[in-house]
Amino acid sequence: MYRYRLTIEYDGTPFGGWQRQNNAPSIQAALEEAFARFAGERPLVVGAGRTDAGVHALAQVAHVDLQRRWRPDRLVAALNAHLRPQPVAVLEARLAGEGFHARFSARERRYVYRILNRRAPAALEAARVWHVPAPLASEHMQEAAQALVGRNDFTSFRSSECQAASPLRTLDLLHVRRAGDLIEIHAAARSFLHHQVRNIAGSLKLVGEGRRSIGWISEALAARDRSAAGPTAPAQGLFLVGVGYPVEPLSAS
Amino acid sequence: MYRYRLTIEYDGTPFGGWQRQNNAPSIQAALEEAFARFAGERPLVVGAGRTDAGVHALAQVAHVDLQRRWRPDRLVAALNAHLRPQPVAVLEARLAGEGFHARFSARERRYVYRILNRRAPAALEAARVWHVPAPLASEHMQEAAQALVGRNDFTSFRSSECQAASPLRTLDLLHVRRAGDLIEIHAAARSFLHHQVRNIAGSLKLVGEGRRSIGWISEALAARDRSAAGPTAPAQGLFLVGVGYPVEPLSAS
Repeated sequence: MYRYRLTIEYDGTPFGGWQRQNNAPSIQAALEEAFARFAGERPLVVGAGRTDAGVHALAQVAHVDLQRRWRPDRLVAALNAHLRPQPVAVLEARLAGEGFHARFSARERRYVYRILNRRAPAALEAARVWHVPAPLASEHMQEAAQALVGRNDFTSFRSSECQAASPLRTLDLLHVRRAGDLIEIHAAARSFLHHQVRNIAGSLKLVGEGRRSIGWISEALAARDRSAAGPTAPAQGLFLVGVGYPVEPLSAS
Repeated sequence: MYRYRLTIEYDGTPFGGWQRQNNAPSIQAALEEAFARFAGERPLVVGAGRTDAGVHALAQVAHVDLQRRWRPDRLVAALNAHLRPQPVAVLEARLAGEGFHARFSARERRYVYRILNRRAPAALEAARVWHVPAPLASEHMQEAAQALVGRNDFTSFRSSECQAASPLRTLDLLHVRRAGDLIEIHAAARSFLHHQVRNIAGSLKLVGEGRRSIGWISEALAARDRSAAGPTAPAQGLFLVGVGYPVEPLSAS
């Protein structure tokens, strides 16, 4: 068996999420079906992050085990040909060591949450941003965000459906920046809880609007109660932008 | 009558172009119908540039004459409410002098043509870029482009269906820049011929691929023959990004 590491871009709009499911198309199933069509086998594709319905990725990472050895560029070309016209593109494939696991080897996940902050709705970016018409003080959001950085109990920012054993996570970076009408919230951590980034974005938006104080975020965190924080921001503003791994030793194969 | 100047963003994908037409939806008709629904009149909306099917705009400008005087922010809100769910957003409305004409007063139109230059197809930006898999030497494209700047007979870069009286145009700026996988061609002129930017983009792509020399662009221009230049680049990579007007005297009203 040969293990390949794939880097994948997708528009999450038409999908029920990364993970294969019965009632909606998924990015995982789209990839598995593309393999089935040209490789004569239908391998399991394991992703680094199980993005929700409507969430996008610039660089999701997955691994797959194949019976046959492929030239990486041919694997990419064949996958993309068979993924068409679905909005999923494989950017890169490389042979990975047996020890590489897209999900368990990951040391960092990076997300960006995008808010279009202007009166007029989004025309070009409607499925790619959260439209917030009221003016947001992005500098207040940035200041408030810093209270969440570090190792914390994120119960207040975790979906009630989250299945992680522990609510403790280490948020390595949370940065809010504005460029014109667009506010980007950058977040990085080894792993995230379910809805963590979207619940943080929904909470920071309340601070940006002035409906909550900058210090309120610390109180919401300390409460360890989901109802203490803000609402969940919509999926379409969220992008998985990268996954980090330890440097792999050169493959023997 | 009160004349308003509108700034409009749109995703050109679902439209047959800016201009009202019998067999396809248009941005112009979408705006006129939105007015009809809330203003009780159906005014003519005159745009600065009649973008083709599939071409996008970040800041198209149009004017419209209304019987009633509106607060500009209310006009914007009412238009956007009645444009929904079409991907057209009015960013701004302002009262304009009677002498203002969106098309004839314009002194500059600015376009950007976007090429995604990587092997993998576009997933997130499929309807917003021209995907060119072969590596393009953007610095060669930039050098070649400079031969087109200035007052020239652009017959070689003009659609056979172009209805302009003269093929002479003054191209004020043509700049090619790369950021990662994205190549942007910026063009500015008082006015453009039909398909001029797309024909220039299609020609510069041949230079970038090395299928034509840098000097070939000058020969293609001098030939004054459409068949001497490259093919028309697809519509979905083109964005009308701005329209410039002389500074208006303050309105008396």
